[in-house]
Amino acid sequence: MAVHSPAPLGTHLILDLWGLDPDLDADRVRKVMREAALQAGATILHDNFHDFDGRDGQPGGFTGVLVLAESHMSIHTWPEADYAAIDIFTCGESAQPHRACEFLVRRFGARTHTLKILSRGAGTIEGAPEHDNHPAREAGLCPVPS
Amino acid sequence: MAVHSPAPLGTHLILDLWGLDPDLDADRVRKVMREAALQAGATILHDNFHDFDGRDGQPGGFTGVLVLAESHMSIHTWPEADYAAIDIFTCGESAQPHRACEFLVRRFGARTHTLKILSRGAGTIEGAPEHDNHPAREAGLCPVPS
Repeated sequence: MAVHSPAPLGTHLILDLWGLDPDLDADRVRKVMREAALQAGATILHDNFHDFDGRDGQPGGFTGVLVLAESHMSIHTWPEADYAAIDIFTCGESAQPHRACEFLVRRFGARTHTLKILSRGAGTIEGAPEHDNHPAREAGLCPVPS
Repeated sequence: MAVHSPAPLGTHLILDLWGLDPDLDADRVRKVMREAALQAGATILHDNFHDFDGRDGQPGGFTGVLVLAESHMSIHTWPEADYAAIDIFTCGESAQPHRACEFLVRRFGARTHTLKILSRGAGTIEGAPEHDNHPAREAGLCPVPS
């Protein structure tokens, strides 16, 4: 049986944005996401972005992922719903994912947003499923008080 | 003001695995993740995997991301904690993310796991932050009853 840490191994911010800046394009989304990763103190290993075709005269959305030495960040946008789903998943003591969160809300010009925080990898083989000490936490709005 | 759908735009499965098959290597993790995406009916646009060096004689972990036409999947492993954090984020009516979930639990030989389900993009600009109809849901173990 492996030895486990009761402390979470990763911090996963689930950020939902509504009312984005209408002038966003794929290049800007990529630049803002990369800058957000740096704001969080993360190291970008790789990125990949796709710009989807729209339908019925509507603009298409973007999908983008950053692979980080500290885990990953992702964005998916639905222009028809004025919505973007962002994930900021980091591990290690030096990463500051909340900084990325604040930066993204500001730079994407979001009119409003919600934030959930998940602690990933807390618990043990024996204890995790039966007793989840780290359920999703509604964190309200950025900036998140420390 | 844009028109919004009250229905969720994306389904996000948060899958935590403990007690993995000790013989996993980077190639196998990549193959299993890709096959899981296909099981979910998703289209893989891109993938990127990293194999991290270990410390103090311990094996390092893996990080891998699949960019999908239907959003993304990711995995981060911590061999020292016998743990892997997996995300399966899909949109669209044809994707079946629970199939990927079941497949991964089985193929990674996980001794136990937890699953949370997030509905992403439900609500509207006006309604989302104040009234979250779609909090994280503890879904118990795979396979998830339909």
